[in-house]
Amino acid sequence: MWAMIATWRMALEGVQDAELILKNGGTASDAIETAIQAVEDFPYFKSVGYGGLPNRKMEVELDAAYMDGQTLGFGAVCGIQDIANPISVARRLSRLKANNVLVGQGARDYAIAQGFETKDMLTDRAQIHYHNRQKQLGLDDNLVPYSGHDTVGMVALDQAGLMVAGTSTSGLFMKEPGRVGDSPFIGSGLYVDAQIGGASGTGMGEDIMKGILSYEIVRLMKAGKSAQEACQTAVFDFERDMANRGTSVGDISMIALAADGSWGVASNIDNFSFVVALPDQGSQVYVTRRQGDTMIHELASQAWLDNYMAERTKPLERL
Amino acid sequence: MWAMIATWRMALEGVQDAELILKNGGTASDAIETAIQAVEDFPYFKSVGYGGLPNRKMEVELDAAYMDGQTLGFGAVCGIQDIANPISVARRLSRLKANNVLVGQGARDYAIAQGFETKDMLTDRAQIHYHNRQKQLGLDDNLVPYSGHDTVGMVALDQAGLMVAGTSTSGLFMKEPGRVGDSPFIGSGLYVDAQIGGASGTGMGEDIMKGILSYEIVRLMKAGKSAQEACQTAVFDFERDMANRGTSVGDISMIALAADGSWGVASNIDNFSFVVALPDQGSQVYVTRRQGDTMIHELASQAWLDNYMAERTKPLERL
Repeated sequence: MWAMIATWRMALEGVQDAELILKNGGTASDAIETAIQAVEDFPYFKSVGYGGLPNRKMEVELDAAYMDGQTLGFGAVCGIQDIANPISVARRLSRLKANNVLVGQGARDYAIAQGFETKDMLTDRAQIHYHNRQKQLGLDDNLVPYSGHDTVGMVALDQAGLMVAGTSTSGLFMKEPGRVGDSPFIGSGLYVDAQIGGASGTGMGEDIMKGILSYEIVRLMKAGKSAQEACQTAVFDFERDMANRGTSVGDISMIALAADGSWGVASNIDNFSFVVALPDQGSQVYVTRRQGDTMIHELASQAWLDNYMAERTKPLERL
Repeated sequence: MWAMIATWRMALEGVQDAELILKNGGTASDAIETAIQAVEDFPYFKSVGYGGLPNRKMEVELDAAYMDGQTLGFGAVCGIQDIANPISVARRLSRLKANNVLVGQGARDYAIAQGFETKDMLTDRAQIHYHNRQKQLGLDDNLVPYSGHDTVGMVALDQAGLMVAGTSTSGLFMKEPGRVGDSPFIGSGLYVDAQIGGASGTGMGEDIMKGILSYEIVRLMKAGKSAQEACQTAVFDFERDMANRGTSVGDISMIALAADGSWGVASNIDNFSFVVALPDQGSQVYVTRRQGDTMIHELASQAWLDNYMAERTKPLERL
């Protein structure tokens, strides 16, 4: 058995690369790093790695995390700049006994000292997005800057039973310099225990972290819930709990993979997409919608898939 | 009812200030900020705020977090430099709708823009500690640099039923620049839900975060365990779980306060001290020791208290 799940359609090509690794007996560690690197490298995904949208000062600051479900080894970088593959730095850090999480300049200095590839991560296209958003913000007071926050989060299970989770993101568009969301926070953006399963999330990180949702999903699976039940319970109970406190939460989408290869997804937004790879089906894109406290997952149609890529690669003009 | 608990004897003077606030009907928010500021300001406590021990490059980098148990509002700064009271910046950030966690230069720029006091946080005494440690490291290969990591963590309950938690630390002595431990990570270094209770921790942050121990303690209290049982279960089950994975954990000490004012502490080290403030007893220092899976708490003797302060303020010579 092997299996993999990842947030958003953008994970597809990376998961397809990882599928080959897992199918051929490779490790969940390599699967996660390879898959997330592919998303980081693709310039048209504007919320992860190269091409990621910049902060308020038009700097691209990236967060990534990696967790080993066997040792619980964890590594993360927060607000790292000019490094091509933050996920690879996070993986390296996860093997250390201490200093596993590095932020800002320290993270960058470490990556450079360790020989990781440096790269100017701000693309021309991201600059156009920035300028256009600035212009729109000036025109419409109701427009909030923080609308793009599509973290790629993944959990993989390999044939030896190892499970690994990883995340990578450029965070909120127009974020305050130095801002970090849930993605590099263990328990919030990701958590994995190879004896139980793993989970990861995407959405409004400031809200996801209040519920420690990835850990909560793993805990619910440990208590006997299926991956699907655990995701639904964690997301919708949290949403209700926050409503009782007088706060409405932002977008939250969570994915989970159990140690037996079964999976689950819950989201409070329309049209959340995700990728699942399994031995009998290969890598497939699903779109999910909520009906009460239950999610209905459907395979993405060819029209949906075509439209997704067309939207992301269409020519962009500076306003 | 009001109550407060804090890690380490060093919290005493701050908790005594907070006690006056709580006794007079003030808020848990003000109690936490006031108490942690006092620890940050005292130059002889070498693991928090002013006088905190520096990183490998002899820079003092500070982490702090603040959580409101009613709204679950959370704020944190990671690796902030030259700011007198990181806890106050974390509190301010906790009230924002987004950008609640800031790291590195971004955190510092925000604090300065918001008018928080700047201060050179590296004391002469900390520089002597640094030089002496460098010299010892050169002489003894078995000496690991990371031995000082005494985070101050606190949970307070006020008469209106609000609960707040906070942490502040300079992190591991000689840490890698940019290194962040559990202290500013929600769920790991602290967590509080005013309907249940709160928890905080100190020790080897890289291990505490693998168990998401503060959240786990709150969750165990929610499931019906007392604060004391929850601390013991979380710490000792985690220790055993890690041993089964082939890893021994470092120092871990956790404190908890339930919404009814009852409290608990568990630690895997000898001589862990903490402070409890309650209406009928004022602020008292305890020292705890482990007997199997049970902790035995005793009031610190006057000799212990005298020795504690004498140790911390004794003249220090450069080797």
